[in-house]
Formats: sequence, C-alpha cells, structure tokens
Amino acid sequence: MENTVENLRIDGTRLWDSLMEMAQIGGTPAGGCNRQALTDEDKQGRDLFARWCREIGCEIRVDRMGNIFARRAGSEDLPPVITGSHLDTQPTGGKFDGVYGVLAGLEVLRTLEQNKVTTRAPLEVVVWTNEEGARFSPAMIGSGVWAGEFSLEYGHGRADKEGKTIGNELERIGYLGDMPAEPKPITAAFEAHIEQGPILEKQEQVIGVVTGVQGIRWYDVTFHGTPCHAGPTPMEDRRDPVQAMSLLCQKLYAEVKTFSEDARMTCGDLRAEPGSRNTVPEKVVLALDLRHPQPEGLEHLHQSLHRVVEEVQQATGTTIEVRDEWHSPPVAFNEDCIAAVDKAVNALGYSHRKMVSGAGHDSVYVSRVAPVSMIFVPCAGGLSHNEAESAEAEHLEAGGNVLLQAMLDRAGIAS
Amino acid sequence: MENTVENLRIDGTRLWDSLMEMAQIGGTPAGGCNRQALTDEDKQGRDLFARWCREIGCEIRVDRMGNIFARRAGSEDLPPVITGSHLDTQPTGGKFDGVYGVLAGLEVLRTLEQNKVTTRAPLEVVVWTNEEGARFSPAMIGSGVWAGEFSLEYGHGRADKEGKTIGNELERIGYLGDMPAEPKPITAAFEAHIEQGPILEKQEQVIGVVTGVQGIRWYDVTFHGTPCHAGPTPMEDRRDPVQAMSLLCQKLYAEVKTFSEDARMTCGDLRAEPGSRNTVPEKVVLALDLRHPQPEGLEHLHQSLHRVVEEVQQATGTTIEVRDEWHSPPVAFNEDCIAAVDKAVNALGYSHRKMVSGAGHDSVYVSRVAPVSMIFVPCAGGLSHNEAESAEAEHLEAGGNVLLQAMLDRAGIAS
Repeated sequence: MENTVENLRIDGTRLWDSLMEMAQIGGTPAGGCNRQALTDEDKQGRDLFARWCREIGCEIRVDRMGNIFARRAGSEDLPPVITGSHLDTQPTGGKFDGVYGVLAGLEVLRTLEQNKVTTRAPLEVVVWTNEEGARFSPAMIGSGVWAGEFSLEYGHGRADKEGKTIGNELERIGYLGDMPAEPKPITAAFEAHIEQGPILEKQEQVIGVVTGVQGIRWYDVTFHGTPCHAGPTPMEDRRDPVQAMSLLCQKLYAEVKTFSEDARMTCGDLRAEPGSRNTVPEKVVLALDLRHPQPEGLEHLHQSLHRVVEEVQQATGTTIEVRDEWHSPPVAFNEDCIAAVDKAVNALGYSHRKMVSGAGHDSVYVSRVAPVSMIFVPCAGGLSHNEAESAEAEHLEAGGNVLLQAMLDRAGIAS
Repeated sequence: MENTVENLRIDGTRLWDSLMEMAQIGGTPAGGCNRQALTDEDKQGRDLFARWCREIGCEIRVDRMGNIFARRAGSEDLPPVITGSHLDTQPTGGKFDGVYGVLAGLEVLRTLEQNKVTTRAPLEVVVWTNEEGARFSPAMIGSGVWAGEFSLEYGHGRADKEGKTIGNELERIGYLGDMPAEPKPITAAFEAHIEQGPILEKQEQVIGVVTGVQGIRWYDVTFHGTPCHAGPTPMEDRRDPVQAMSLLCQKLYAEVKTFSEDARMTCGDLRAEPGSRNTVPEKVVLALDLRHPQPEGLEHLHQSLHRVVEEVQQATGTTIEVRDEWHSPPVAFNEDCIAAVDKAVNALGYSHRKMVSGAGHDSVYVSRVAPVSMIFVPCAGGLSHNEAESAEAEHLEAGGNVLLQAMLDRAGIAS
C-alpha cells in the first residue's frame, strides 16, 4: 500500500485540459483571461469548479466571504490538510496565476478518488475570494477576512469603481455562504503557484520550495520644489523636484543593489505637478516599493531611504516628504510544511531550489493561523499579470505531483 | 530744446496708477489678474487702453488679428518707432507681465504730449493679441501672424477648450479690425517687460539691456522598459524605465551645469505608465526643455542629450525614444536698438547689465521683420505667471524712462 501511494502521480493531461477549459471563461482574444472577482464570469468559473468537485464526491461549503471549501473526507476526525488559491484574474490576466493552484488541488483529489486512496485527515481545496485586488481593493481580502486581518463588515463593504460592494455582489452571484468566515484548526496548508518571476526558468529548475514571502514597505515620496520659468532662472538658483527625485532614485538603486541580491526597489508610479512643459514642477510624487525577505533587511532598506532623503534634501534644497503607506513584514513559512515539500521534491527527483516569494499570496494570511508552505513552478519569461502569461504542461504536472505527495505526507494514509 | 528732451522723465506715479487701474479688470481675490485673451475682461482692458490713447490724440487702428496700434504722428512720413507688449494674462496671472510694456509705452506718449514734444518718426504703442497662449495655443499668435510666422487663417481658426475660435471671439468683442495683419516698415521696436527671472533682483540692478532671446528645443523623451512584478524579479534582470530616466536626468543635469552658466534644462512634466505601485512601469514619458543663448550652445546641448541617451540605453538595457517637439533658434536683437537702450541707461545713470531673455516674447516674432530690442526691470523673487507677481514702482519708472529715451533716440526730434 505504502509503495503504491508513493508511486501515485497526477494526470498532467487532465490538469492541462481543466486549465484550458477554465480559461475559456472570460477568455480574451489575446489568449489571456478577464475573470475579475464576483463578475458573471467569476460565477461561471466557481460553478464549474464546484461541479468538478461534486463529480468526485466532494462536499462544497461556502463562507460569508464567498470562499469555497471543497472537502474530501478522511478516515479520522482530524483538522484538514488544505490547498488552494484563487480563480479571479487581473483585467488583462493570464490562464495560470491562481487558477493553477486551485486546479492542481482538484487534480490531487481526482487522483486519490481514481486510485481509491483514503487519507487519515480530510483534504480540502479552497477558492479564496478576490485575491487580485483588481476589482475590489485590497488584494487577498477573502483569505484576509478568514484569517482575521480584516472584519467581515470591512470585507462586505469594499466597493468597485461603480460602487458595487463585495457583499451585494456575493449575494447577486449566489456565493454569499452561511459558514462563518473565520479560521478553523488546520493540519497543514499548501499552495501551488506559478513563480511570477524569472528565477526558476533562468536556472532551469522545475520546482521552487518556497520558504516564505518577502517583507514589503510602500511609501509615497513627495519632492517639493519651487516652480519657475524654464528660461530665465539659472540652474543654480532652482529648487527642482525632478533633480531631487532623479538623484534619490540613483542613490537608492545603488544602495539596494549593493546591499543584497534579495533586496528589491520599484518605482511603479510617478508624476510631476502641475506638469507644464516649460515650468520647473512644484512637486514630483513617487510611489516606492521596497522588499526584503528578512525583517532586518527590510529595516536596513527603510533606514537607507531616510538617510538618502536627508542627503538629497541637502544637495538640492528641496523638501522631501516620506509617507508610510503599507508595511507587510516578511513571512517565514512553517518548517514542517517546507520539509514535506522538500521531501516530496527529492523523492520525485525534480530539479529544485529553495526560494522566497517576491509576490504576496493568500498563503500570507493563511500562515497567520495555520502551518503553510508553497510550491512554485516556472512561468515563461517570469511574466505574469499579463495575457501572455504561460507555463509548460510538464512543469505544471511536476508541481501537482509535489503537491499530491506533500499533502499525503501531512494527511497520512488510512490504514 | 535738445537739453530739454534729454531731461524729459515719465510720471512714475501716473504709470503705477494706470497699472493698478488696468489690474482691476479681471482682478482676482489673491491680488492677481485673470484677463485671458478675447474674453469680456480683455475687451474691457482694450477699451480702457484705447480710451487713454484717444485722450492724448492718438489714432487707433486694429488689424485682422486684433492687434491694436495707437499712433502718435511724427513730423515726417517715416516708418514708425513702435513699442508694446500684451494685455492678456494667464488664468492666475499677475498685474505686470505684458501690461507693463503696453502702459510704459502709453506713458511715453503721455509724457511727450504733456511736454509738447514732436518726434520726426511717428510713434506707435502696440497691443499684441493672445501672447500668453493660455486660452488659445500657441502663444504669441498675434505677433506671429503679423510677422508672417503663421497664416491669418491659422490664427483665426485656433480654438479654446470650448471650441470658440479666435476669429469669432475677435468679432464678438469688436476687435476684428480691417487693417491687414502683416508687417510694415518699422524704424525700430522696443518692448519693456518684467524680467520673469531672479537675476536683476539678485544682483541689485535696475535695468536689463536685453541683447536677445535664448534658443529653445523641446523634446518628448520616452523610456521603454519591461513591466514586471515588484517582488519576484531580481534587480539585475530588470529593464526599468525609471532607472533609465533618473540616470539620464542626473547625467544631463551634470553636463548642462558644467557646460555653461547660460544653459538651461527643465523637466517640466513626467509620468509613468501604466503607473501601478507594485509593477515596474512599461514606460516613462519626460517632457524636456533645453535652452541656450547661442546656436552653437544649443546644438551642443542637443548633441549631449543624444550621447547621454546612448550611454543610458547601454547601461540599463532600455530603449529610449527622443522626439523633437519644437525648435526655436536663439534670437539676437538689433545692434542699433541695443545701443539705443544702452545709451539711455548710461545717460540716466541706472545700474544695469546686458542679458539674454530666457522667456519668449512678442519681440521674438517682431525681430524677424524689424530692428528690435527689449528693456527688463526686476520682479520680486523672479516670480511670474503667478498672482503674487510683483515689481517696484521705482524700477517700473526707470524702465519707462529708458524706453522714452531709446524711442526718442531712434525717432529723432522735430526741429
């Protein structure tokens, strides 16, 4: 029996076909997906998932945040081993981000059903509501409410650009469940996901054993200068916020690159105000994102920013205002869950590396109340949040096999 | 008689009072002016100016672009000596920009009338239509059509944001004249103006003897990168357009400052696209303004830009696209007109310096068809295009006296 279970493999073709069938719901001409949270397309996607789960005898339960739990019973009354991710996409999203984690979980249950394997602990596949944050802000709100980061009232009250709320939209599409959106005892949780970065592909590795998630700090940095006419005012008399912004960027990029290869600095948005071609701007506003896997590393970047701000103020005569927008401390995943993934990868003989997730995932919130780790597979060019998002069927199958073995390891096999 | 004329002085109090009376038309609560071109307020300002001119016996003629010529006859049938500027303002403009040049000209005529002085050449004070370019683009269109830079059809067809055209608005306010908007022989032209920069104030000088206008080149510089997630992608794998933009700015600011104290570099507008906080932008668009008083200097800056673009492309892996938006070559004013201003300043004993205008003025277009120079007076803090724009009555009076003597020099006195 034990020998048989260790040799169990998922059906990679069936997984791929499920991914392609799901991708038709909200499919875009460019080959991507637009299946934003709680739209009619999201409802269709949820319905399809629920049908597939019922076909293999799973029980479907929905909580008050619309999170779906598909349960396959175990032989004992133990806390479940869960896996899952999200079915919602960016407006110009791809076919794999999130969906892969849900359907890899489904494929695990299908494989066990087909092979008549019963686990000791029950297994559950979860669909978390509104992970992307594209339609409703903030991101990961379904898992966030469930894990206690946000209240249910807050979650229900979040509105899209047209003023439609999560609460009303859940009711409209029939996914306002009656189960409380709150944590229950969990034996272990896993999430399979495309990497959304280029490391695995570049290093020709199949599996990323994810040990945690980078810490993130968001800042709004405003550079205040003195507007003046582009012609008459000599350069040395100017208080130019573009001069200050570009100097700060150059100094900080250099610090970040020197400090650690794990450090990240992204200037995702910037604008000049009032933005008239022949006037030195009054101010420049920069949205800054700093990341590091360790708390001390993130704190170092935070201190570097403030030191560079002082230097640039002195060098340019401008005033620089730094506003903290968000602080998500680094997450270290559970040692036992990481070990289960590591053991499975080694047993299966896939090339792999340990890595830290640069992106946030539902697992960040789940990890606050349960033992968690993640499994990454490569995606083409590291591209995600893009209709061109792509992954190899072979890699997706490998990740599914790792997920299967890791879940079996934590759930145990009925004797 | 010659002794008397050299001792002639304008009435500084009367000039100041005229400025303050004109400033009430379109006056703003913050002490500035909103008298945009061809509005009801502009009509009131024009009417007031015309009434003042008629009160001292001037003949008023209006051309088909609404440019107003107030003529005081000379003793001979010679081409006129003209002066003037504009009465229109920015939406949040000041009391002096443009208006000063018109009313200083009026004050010259009043002084001559009061002292019964007749010049050999006629004198004219001109009000040019829509210098600011705030309501109708482009700026300086009245003098531009007159000097042959633009066709009359182009001028009449320019529309404001509501679709109202210059042609229709001229007719509506009664300033669509029947005189052709085209150049005629001119003996000499002068324009008095506030400096709109800080140099005279900083150096405690009363008069700027303006020898020309800086050359200007406008560019749209677009930095193309590769969008990627702020977390997973290592810094060395990124093609980050913000990194490229900030590096280009720092290199070019350094080049400009080292090259010449007369060189100017302004980044008046910039934005990131799509501008999402946790994604490396796809591109950054920068509006760049480079200026230099000499053609060779401007060409040097142009070459520097293109060299730095090459360096930054190589250093960052981004693609940088440079589009030429506008090229206004440097203008050198007429030697005889400059000499007339210089002679007047020296005779009057005002502290002064030669300088190049950083801003464009109607005189740029007028200089294409007539001998021209300008007279600058200080403004507080170099501030202009701002309701807080301010100038000293004493300096405005000094500029008026220089204008008077320079015009007399070029027009000659009837024997």
